[in-house]
Amino acid sequence: MSEALKKLRRDAAAIFQAGLRAVAPEEAMRRHVQRDGDALIIAGRRYDLPAFRQIIVLGAGKAACPMTKVLEEMLADRLTGGHVNVKYGHLTPLKKIQIQEAGHPVPDAAGLAGTQKILDLLATVDKDDLAIAVLSGGGSALLPMPSAGITLEEKQATTKLLLACGANINEMNAIRKHLSQVKGGQLARAAYPATLITLILSDVIGDPLDVIASGPMVADTSTFQEVQSILDKYGIREQLPASVQKHFVKGLAGEAPETPKLGDAIFAKTQNLIVASNRQAIAAAQAEAQQLGYRTLILSTLIEGETREVARVHAAIAKEIRASGHPLLPPACVISGGETTVTLRGNGLGGRNQEFVLAAAIDIADVPDAVILSAGTDGTDGPTDAAGAVGDGETIRRAAELALQPQAFLNNNDSYRFFEKLGDLLITGPTNTNVMDLRLMLIG
Amino acid sequence: MSEALKKLRRDAAAIFQAGLRAVAPEEAMRRHVQRDGDALIIAGRRYDLPAFRQIIVLGAGKAACPMTKVLEEMLADRLTGGHVNVKYGHLTPLKKIQIQEAGHPVPDAAGLAGTQKILDLLATVDKDDLAIAVLSGGGSALLPMPSAGITLEEKQATTKLLLACGANINEMNAIRKHLSQVKGGQLARAAYPATLITLILSDVIGDPLDVIASGPMVADTSTFQEVQSILDKYGIREQLPASVQKHFVKGLAGEAPETPKLGDAIFAKTQNLIVASNRQAIAAAQAEAQQLGYRTLILSTLIEGETREVARVHAAIAKEIRASGHPLLPPACVISGGETTVTLRGNGLGGRNQEFVLAAAIDIADVPDAVILSAGTDGTDGPTDAAGAVGDGETIRRAAELALQPQAFLNNNDSYRFFEKLGDLLITGPTNTNVMDLRLMLIG
Repeated sequence: MSEALKKLRRDAAAIFQAGLRAVAPEEAMRRHVQRDGDALIIAGRRYDLPAFRQIIVLGAGKAACPMTKVLEEMLADRLTGGHVNVKYGHLTPLKKIQIQEAGHPVPDAAGLAGTQKILDLLATVDKDDLAIAVLSGGGSALLPMPSAGITLEEKQATTKLLLACGANINEMNAIRKHLSQVKGGQLARAAYPATLITLILSDVIGDPLDVIASGPMVADTSTFQEVQSILDKYGIREQLPASVQKHFVKGLAGEAPETPKLGDAIFAKTQNLIVASNRQAIAAAQAEAQQLGYRTLILSTLIEGETREVARVHAAIAKEIRASGHPLLPPACVISGGETTVTLRGNGLGGRNQEFVLAAAIDIADVPDAVILSAGTDGTDGPTDAAGAVGDGETIRRAAELALQPQAFLNNNDSYRFFEKLGDLLITGPTNTNVMDLRLMLIG
Repeated sequence: MSEALKKLRRDAAAIFQAGLRAVAPEEAMRRHVQRDGDALIIAGRRYDLPAFRQIIVLGAGKAACPMTKVLEEMLADRLTGGHVNVKYGHLTPLKKIQIQEAGHPVPDAAGLAGTQKILDLLATVDKDDLAIAVLSGGGSALLPMPSAGITLEEKQATTKLLLACGANINEMNAIRKHLSQVKGGQLARAAYPATLITLILSDVIGDPLDVIASGPMVADTSTFQEVQSILDKYGIREQLPASVQKHFVKGLAGEAPETPKLGDAIFAKTQNLIVASNRQAIAAAQAEAQQLGYRTLILSTLIEGETREVARVHAAIAKEIRASGHPLLPPACVISGGETTVTLRGNGLGGRNQEFVLAAAIDIADVPDAVILSAGTDGTDGPTDAAGAVGDGETIRRAAELALQPQAFLNNNDSYRFFEKLGDLLITGPTNTNVMDLRLMLIG
């Protein structure tokens, strides 16, 4: 491997790490929240701490512990107390804030108990109090609280039924929010009339506040009326659990609480701030790439679709840069984010990021001085211990020397074993954050 | 529809037309070939016409007539004569140059007869003569001339057998060139020692001279030895027609002519020039977009892959431009080229360009002031009378008003009927050129 290619690979790793650092929970919190004397400064807004009677912290998500730890340190003796729900195994000790480990992605009784404790805590706050919430990936499953009279199992049966009908994500969310006591702005209602600040680590494409963790702190646009239309559309009203049917009837009659809407007084006292997102990771990666002397281009943070096809489009851009200097002249670094999907065809071992790099490597075979890196910011790619992989214009030649057939590995969704043999897996270990994936293409 | 959106759509159409104009056969020829007194100037090189004893024109491809017409006018009484093969129905009368209509994509006896006439013509030229060749899409099928002792049918049976084995495109080309008397540089050998200029309208991604029309005028890198390895790899030697087996044995023994290689004296007297390509269409489209006030970005001219997934990546870029001003600030025009594929799942009517716009429109639903256009430069998209289609952020809402379900049309590969109902088909009629597809995204 040439020195030039080695340098490109080192740079790619450094650029990825810079992106990762920017969205590590503690770092992300410290960039957006500062203590200044007796005040907390959040996104330029000043909160005078002695003005509040109680200051509590609450939240849920895989990154809840490290996010909350920063608040605990910053608030110090001003902090009254708090409670967060985290995924099993994601616990790091806190001092004043209680932690409930709970089930994810399937919610469980522990999650219910933890959510009840959060609601109990919010029942103690008043207009002179400050509630700071943290939300991160997994926040929806980790904040379960079905509407009165409905069990977790009945709620899950309902969403399964809808999925089977082919309901789209907006329809699913409308139903979910109307079977919950916390989703769709209802946790913000529970905090009202306290001042509520929500700090968010976004794992959803485009950072839609009403979708992240099912939007517990923001106004909902869907209604019980809309829920009825969805049930009619798919003709499944009679197949729903009796308790769910009953709840929807009550909702239509105004006997079950509608989700809060834009303009509600609740939202005059709330502030939402995204402290870490794919876009922020990418901005940090871009800054690092510029520092290293690359011309940079952010393609999109909103990339979705079938991984191997998305990879082909990326490879076509890399090849065009090499061939014509479009869309930018080398030394070039193209960055993209979002999260792709993999349609499983084989029974190999891999993940979307490793599969992306394998498919792209096939297309950039023999392109000189071109490196492609893709990795999950959570440090996990599919059911593997790798975050992703690194490929370049020599990957396919090196594979041939080892008698590996790249297309066969791709067809079998076996990207992990392919890159394992080449020594090109990217392994970071768990990062405690998740802002989806980063993809880099460096053309020297 | 807002005035702003209407203007974006008008601009998109104008930008596409500018791209199309630049690669129209006559226009492309006139941009690269000029008559200056008694000389012909081709890409800056001066050819003194009185210095040549004979000047002949030859060639093949769907655009052969309009390309040749320009030469006939320019050379006027200096032209000795010529012969071109065109696809049935692509004939426009010429004065001194003979035309053979022939079969495409399946070559036929008429193509054979026409190719023989070209070879007969080349048999009359010597070192003091000038041969100008034109090649365009379809040039391979329109220049059939199997190796001695092999019929067209036997050659076709061989390529079918290889396709069925999963042979890749490079392997297919190696075999094809070694079953031909003209492909792989052999037509240039037939022209030697005359001066040979080949003017090319490229319909292949990346414009590889050895692939366009099977590279009749350029050095071949493959050998009879390589052909043997391919046959061994797939274990199909014994299944080949007897005449083909015999030919390959002779080739290995040096008793059948090998294709000419780089460094052969032949290529000292040849010049190849691409007069129209996807890249040239895109450059013209970019110039027009800049003229209309857009910031422009050429994404890649090398885009391949499954259409609906490629569309999702494009849509993600459009949405990012709207959301964050990356990769460029509005008013923005992103241009891409190449040619995607469609895996048929339904039995609808459509083409890759129309399907691209439909899939992208689903993803940019409700994005304000965003227009997506995709069309084939040949004026034909799939088995339809449309070149492509135009969509925007309101397409899906307008479809809903007509009770059309976009996803159902996409699933059924029925993009033509979808855009027909919306009045959003892009119809140009046949353009007599083909440099693959143009895709435009305008964000106002």
